[in-house]
Amino acid sequence: MGKDLFRTEDEFVQWLLARAAPAQRHERARSSKRREGVKLGIGDDAALVAVGRGQELILTTDMSIEDVHFSHRLHSAEAVGHRALARSLSDVAAMGGVPRYVLISLAASKRVTSDWVSGFYRGMQALARRFDVRLVGGDTALVPSKTFIDVLVAGEVPRGKALRRSGALPGDQIFVSGRLGLSALGLRLLQSKRGASRRPVKAAAREAVRAHLYPEPQCALGRFLSRRSVASALMDLSDGLSTDLSRLCTASGVGARLWAAKIPGPDLPEAADSLQLALHGGEDYQLLFTVPQRKTSRLPSRFRGKPLYHLGEIEVSKGIRLVTPDGKVHTLEPGGWDHFRSSLAGPGRKMRVSKAVNALHD
Amino acid sequence: MGKDLFRTEDEFVQWLLARAAPAQRHERARSSKRREGVKLGIGDDAALVAVGRGQELILTTDMSIEDVHFSHRLHSAEAVGHRALARSLSDVAAMGGVPRYVLISLAASKRVTSDWVSGFYRGMQALARRFDVRLVGGDTALVPSKTFIDVLVAGEVPRGKALRRSGALPGDQIFVSGRLGLSALGLRLLQSKRGASRRPVKAAAREAVRAHLYPEPQCALGRFLSRRSVASALMDLSDGLSTDLSRLCTASGVGARLWAAKIPGPDLPEAADSLQLALHGGEDYQLLFTVPQRKTSRLPSRFRGKPLYHLGEIEVSKGIRLVTPDGKVHTLEPGGWDHFRSSLAGPGRKMRVSKAVNALHD
Repeated sequence: MGKDLFRTEDEFVQWLLARAAPAQRHERARSSKRREGVKLGIGDDAALVAVGRGQELILTTDMSIEDVHFSHRLHSAEAVGHRALARSLSDVAAMGGVPRYVLISLAASKRVTSDWVSGFYRGMQALARRFDVRLVGGDTALVPSKTFIDVLVAGEVPRGKALRRSGALPGDQIFVSGRLGLSALGLRLLQSKRGASRRPVKAAAREAVRAHLYPEPQCALGRFLSRRSVASALMDLSDGLSTDLSRLCTASGVGARLWAAKIPGPDLPEAADSLQLALHGGEDYQLLFTVPQRKTSRLPSRFRGKPLYHLGEIEVSKGIRLVTPDGKVHTLEPGGWDHFRSSLAGPGRKMRVSKAVNALHD
Repeated sequence: MGKDLFRTEDEFVQWLLARAAPAQRHERARSSKRREGVKLGIGDDAALVAVGRGQELILTTDMSIEDVHFSHRLHSAEAVGHRALARSLSDVAAMGGVPRYVLISLAASKRVTSDWVSGFYRGMQALARRFDVRLVGGDTALVPSKTFIDVLVAGEVPRGKALRRSGALPGDQIFVSGRLGLSALGLRLLQSKRGASRRPVKAAAREAVRAHLYPEPQCALGRFLSRRSVASALMDLSDGLSTDLSRLCTASGVGARLWAAKIPGPDLPEAADSLQLALHGGEDYQLLFTVPQRKTSRLPSRFRGKPLYHLGEIEVSKGIRLVTPDGKVHTLEPGGWDHFRSSLAGPGRKMRVSKAVNALHD
């Protein structure tokens, strides 16, 4: 493939069709096992897919915009493709569903090469294959300004089994599926590495950089929580624990208490502000969920080898209280990442630091 | 509402929720008639919807980008909202399906006001209501560059009833659902009116301007053609007859013959180049379909009061031949609009003029 972008939309669709073909062959090969599937993919007016009997449909879209959600300086084409899809897969995980189909709208900047577009689809398709999600359509355009990506994922969940944000009740226990703040730390390491030309990222910190560039949607856990009817409320952590837990509490009409000592921040020397990263760092795509007290015994301490962290409980009183190891209770304000307001193009990622967290570092 | 945009994504989602509420109330009111519906709309991680038994799912996304698909100079916020949704509804019509749900991703330029955003949703929702389509989700961001919109529509079609581009066979007759080139003429009138400060558009030309600003998706006809099993191939005319018929022929592995005298161009004094507009003007969103000779008697001459136009036939030999009234046969090259390559920001919409059409005007 040359350095030039495709000359026409038809040319681009043909190229895309060649990329999508392995997935569609794959589909035919297993069609005897599954009655549902892709009836019609890229190349017609729309995609045509089947939804299984007794299933409800989950629909989610997530935008990835140059210099808002990614930057060519920090993110490779593969990472942009992976992250763009991971965001939507995580939304499906957050309902307890199984992702099935993806549509990609790509408005490629005239400044990107076809190698970039190729890398973008490679990153996206590698993740799609691992989750058995098929690319069935989308839209394309060339634009003079920034690159803009919108990813739609359609998933399925058995009728009545979808988990919402709004089901948390006072007394329910609060869990997360993994360490928090790793992605924010990874972004910081990438920025300092590029910005100040420092030494390469150390092996110990590679986990954080990887968490930022290649986040792993927690679909298997979401599905487990839904099928076993263990969780009362579920959502994914895209904008940071303080912001997303606030949303869960608002949706459920409750409040929450978090134990600072139980919040699993990045365990690295680079993260002196580990708790702050864990509370306010976004894009971890771990799951946040609540479990009624009587059901906590049905929750394993580890899921697929990874520990689940128990870090607080739901209360009647609105707002979020953070209990520090000295026994003091602080009010925790939402301080996460709001893509609506912020931009990577600005002076790095700004995090609003709550008074409680500042107090910890005094 | 003030002139300022929403400060946070949550604020915006709340505002959107208030807009979407009437449609969701509407849903509950008719829930006794329909077992399927919206289980969960805006505000959670994803939308949750049901698909009827024995139905297949149609998924389509279409981007609308500032200075590519619309310009603030020519298009009101309402028209941008209408057109953005109309493109996707037309894709569902082009499969013979019924549109059900819509998700909107809006990356609003920091230069637009909340009045603009409000007008955009008003235009979009007015069309959604008429087609009984419910806004169930999407994504939002503020961007420093141009406004970017991506519209996803999910629709349904009875299992096995979807109409594709690929079903045309030699001998099938070619039809379109309405006059062609009106939208391109409307755009030209808008551009000349604004550019050269000419007199206001005359009443007779208002139809063309309206066709451009508020195109009408042909969902009822698409559904009719699918249910009655009349058409062998179906698509919508988004990029112009010459381009889209080429796509249909390529997908079906056939060629076509068009009779120039039968092609319904804009019947206006402003359109001296009526045939050229009809062949190459895009964004008409009329349906293009083929009907086997033996079934043509089952096709009404008018559908819902509007004439259906019979303008050619499918042939074995590849390529498109245009027969002019003098009996001569010209080769018609695709000359429509390719959003992938062109931009409204350039010197107006450029149309590639085929030799056959030039010959007509010599």
